[in-house]
Amino acid sequence: MEVGKDVKHLQVGDRVALEPGKTCGHCEFCKEGKYNLCPDVVFFATPPVDGVFQEYVAHEAALCFKLPDNVSTLEGALIEPLAVGFHAAIQGDAHLGQKAVVMGAGCIGLVSMMALKARGVSEVYVVDVMDKRLDKAMELGATGVINGMKEDVAAKVRELTDGKGTDLVIETAGSEITSRQAIEIAKNGSTIVFVGYSKSGEVTLPMSVALNKELTFKTVFRYRNIYPMAIQAVADGKVNLKGIVTKEYPLDQADIAMDESIKNKADIVKAVIRIHD
Amino acid sequence: MEVGKDVKHLQVGDRVALEPGKTCGHCEFCKEGKYNLCPDVVFFATPPVDGVFQEYVAHEAALCFKLPDNVSTLEGALIEPLAVGFHAAIQGDAHLGQKAVVMGAGCIGLVSMMALKARGVSEVYVVDVMDKRLDKAMELGATGVINGMKEDVAAKVRELTDGKGTDLVIETAGSEITSRQAIEIAKNGSTIVFVGYSKSGEVTLPMSVALNKELTFKTVFRYRNIYPMAIQAVADGKVNLKGIVTKEYPLDQADIAMDESIKNKADIVKAVIRIHD
Amino acid sequence: MEVGKDVKHLQVGDRVALEPGKTCGHCEFCKEGKYNLCPDVVFFATPPVDGVFQEYVAHEAALCFKLPDNVSTLEGALIEPLAVGFHAAIQGDAHLGQKAVVMGAGCIGLVSMMALKARGVSEVYVVDVMDKRLDKAMELGATGVINGMKEDVAAKVRELTDGKGTDLVIETAGSEITSRQAIEIAKNGSTIVFVGYSKSGEVTLPMSVALNKELTFKTVFRYRNIYPMAIQAVADGKVNLKGIVTKEYPLDQADIAMDESIKNKADIVKAVIRIHD
Amino acid sequence: MEVGKDVKHLQVGDRVALEPGKTCGHCEFCKEGKYNLCPDVVFFATPPVDGVFQEYVAHEAALCFKLPDNVSTLEGALIEPLAVGFHAAIQGDAHLGQKAVVMGAGCIGLVSMMALKARGVSEVYVVDVMDKRLDKAMELGATGVINGMKEDVAAKVRELTDGKGTDLVIETAGSEITSRQAIEIAKNGSTIVFVGYSKSGEVTLPMSVALNKELTFKTVFRYRNIYPMAIQAVADGKVNLKGIVTKEYPLDQADIAMDESIKNKADIVKAVIRIHD
Repeated sequence: MEVGKDVKHLQVGDRVALEPGKTCGHCEFCKEGKYNLCPDVVFFATPPVDGVFQEYVAHEAALCFKLPDNVSTLEGALIEPLAVGFHAAIQGDAHLGQKAVVMGAGCIGLVSMMALKARGVSEVYVVDVMDKRLDKAMELGATGVINGMKEDVAAKVRELTDGKGTDLVIETAGSEITSRQAIEIAKNGSTIVFVGYSKSGEVTLPMSVALNKELTFKTVFRYRNIYPMAIQAVADGKVNLKGIVTKEYPLDQADIAMDESIKNKADIVKAVIRIHD
Repeated sequence: MEVGKDVKHLQVGDRVALEPGKTCGHCEFCKEGKYNLCPDVVFFATPPVDGVFQEYVAHEAALCFKLPDNVSTLEGALIEPLAVGFHAAIQGDAHLGQKAVVMGAGCIGLVSMMALKARGVSEVYVVDVMDKRLDKAMELGATGVINGMKEDVAAKVRELTDGKGTDLVIETAGSEITSRQAIEIAKNGSTIVFVGYSKSGEVTLPMSVALNKELTFKTVFRYRNIYPMAIQAVADGKVNLKGIVTKEYPLDQADIAMDESIKNKADIVKAVIRIHD
Repeated sequence: MEVGKDVKHLQVGDRVALEPGKTCGHCEFCKEGKYNLCPDVVFFATPPVDGVFQEYVAHEAALCFKLPDNVSTLEGALIEPLAVGFHAAIQGDAHLGQKAVVMGAGCIGLVSMMALKARGVSEVYVVDVMDKRLDKAMELGATGVINGMKEDVAAKVRELTDGKGTDLVIETAGSEITSRQAIEIAKNGSTIVFVGYSKSGEVTLPMSVALNKELTFKTVFRYRNIYPMAIQAVADGKVNLKGIVTKEYPLDQADIAMDESIKNKADIVKAVIRIHD
Repeated sequence: MEVGKDVKHLQVGDRVALEPGKTCGHCEFCKEGKYNLCPDVVFFATPPVDGVFQEYVAHEAALCFKLPDNVSTLEGALIEPLAVGFHAAIQGDAHLGQKAVVMGAGCIGLVSMMALKARGVSEVYVVDVMDKRLDKAMELGATGVINGMKEDVAAKVRELTDGKGTDLVIETAGSEITSRQAIEIAKNGSTIVFVGYSKSGEVTLPMSVALNKELTFKTVFRYRNIYPMAIQAVADGKVNLKGIVTKEYPLDQADIAMDESIKNKADIVKAVIRIHD
């Protein structure tokens, strides 16, 4: 292991979180600070670029963020999904005084919920159809949860918001049902942040309702300028990042980890690969 | 005719444009300046409130905006739709340096195009399927037009934008085809403003494309805080408002005006009712 | 005591916090949601309008905000200054990940510090010259404090921010010294919110430094649209509002309360008048 | 002359405008799109870096912006100051419907005025003390001018704005008098953009007035992400850039050009060095 000769902020042996995308630095998106939209980005695990299930990798120093002593490498490995949650929260301008709903209690839903809480959002409710995931959401700090299979989501949200609707919805489930519920529960003039991809890529939406409420839809593609803040939030105890991990695998079982994560969504919220003990 | 005793800014005989919605003034939407979202608004021609095809009407003074001498009552009658166009332009933060596309060359499409131009947008292209409407768009100042029946809209926009896509789309046609085209032609990180209502109220959208481009969708419900600026823009010659009128009817033919406007969309872009000669 | 016949959200006996300013509701500032700038506002305790050191007062229902059971009337009386702190925090777009400094540890400085913390700001340092006030700041949750009489404020802030400077300064002391320090410690591109009035009304500032750093100065005049959120923040325990009160007086000693508060700034951070026991 | 092998957007012989600052590309300011605040910038004519009064220079391709055929090299040489004007206009969110005042009719004042007009600002008044400069402002499209030596600026602006004050002030003169006038003429809730540096670097301001009006002060340090838009605005005839040039000098008289520009401010608004005929 070594660091480049011009690198000032890192030393050999430092533990870091990697931001996976190397961007061109001079296109209009890079120059305007929206580098996540750079068309020439080279991003780990996005074809044709391989991922990094490996012990060593060379990476641009500016994309390596040192972890403080009280942030573990397990947490460091989860800064990437947390960054998606924070980017969603920022796109939605999440702030104190709001009542928000997160659709979906998978990894991205949970980190979004924690990002909202860390930014001061007053009440954050999580909607899913699996009780185990909803229990996890409560354990990690959700104000309340709604099982969409058992309760009428819109009616429940109306009750929780004195009939006014939500100030902010983060849609991470990627389903048409939750996307439509998001529009139904949103307060006039509020914002929905779409994060989850649907399987077909297509969603049928009641756009007339969105127009009548003058809603704003924001979307999320990865993240930008988030890592230092996200790492700090974990170090400060504002986000219980290790809490989302339900299973660990050694590196030589990475394929098993992938399989089980896909097949057993109800039990495995988030699995991590552990390289060293 | 008379004015209330506390009214300072109007005199009997003044010609005014009416903003049609009386709002409550103390709900959260009114207090935050988004009075167009007031749930208790009383709005002319929105059931159960009648419209004002009549010679006299009593209306709140703060909603009556005096027309300067060089703005005609015909133009005054069109400030309302123009306000929708300006609200769309403002929702999309339209500004100098952008290349924009307006979907639809009906009344709202045309006023949106003129609102964009008045705010300094560098290039504004208009898409429709009727040549007469597109001719009208060119006459009123569009940078160029595209007939969606004859040309491949996405290919043409790609060509006009050096392959980059548009900085802003204003969707006024309300069709699924144009809504999908809007997403297809939008540049990474850009904004689409949805103004037009579809017939069914439902639209199927390629949300995955929107996510990959990290698009923002804004919507428009009426308008707010626009009238003084819109009237001034007409007075300054920045918007050729009377140019959108293709037919005038006397008050006693209001029903005919309605019928013909609906049946003959290709020829009648915008009709007005003339009360006095 | 009674409530108006059209009032739905209050009943006789409800405990409320009063927002003191009645605004006109139809000027451009009111209609744009910046009602605190309404030129025709009638505001308690702003000449020629008397204050309300009295047991009963009639007030517009929309300006009476019901207190939840777990918020005391003492806290209710302090929602007004807290609203200034929240307005300052919002004007400065205070958010998670920032390092901020509050100049001044008087009532407004302390509520500003707590407002920043409640909005998620990661580190908030408070500067003052009186140790008792700084102790109070620590007690109420400041990340750290700096006594400007004993330490070099700029050097200390440089140390606390790895030489980068602050992301946000809230200036509540109203002195030229602290205003100049604010500019000195601010990071490139950051924002200073000016809240405190200087005695002369005039301040000499190194504007060239502000230009070189491309700083933004925001200012605060009262507040707008804050009460419900501020009350909720107190109810949720996010702001320790009662902690700023160092002394209570009965109503018939209001004049003494005023005198002592002015003469004895080091000991009395904030005094309140108690009407009923 | 040659272009680097990876450069796609330029060919030998292209005429370009140079953006003078090479930035690091990976500090927080660069990554957030505020590259003008990069602490490691290398900027022509900013000590210790020389300027480019010379025939040839090697420069980063991404900082070389091709001029369209209808934009002359004389105009190309003036894109740099125009970029300051546009950055000021953008910092102030200049837009249609506003009444604005520009303090100072020097080069930066004039390009700011033209930038405001190009962004659609309805009325732009220019204040200076030299009639020749004010004549130039009128010639270039100002709505009106005020000679601060002959007229009461505040009284005149009050008259021009129906007593309301300005929506936007761009302060380019750098004097205390005009800075104070800016605050005096600004409407409640409006923005002043400070561009001009004062000689001493210090300015005494009536901050209490700024607080009472809840003004925002923005400042300008160079510019960012402006060149393509500025070049397009010149190409489209929205900015009469060559109109600000009052004198041309050959390259071997650069020193004379500098001397005369400083000594004869009333006559020379902007001089340019012509390298080739």
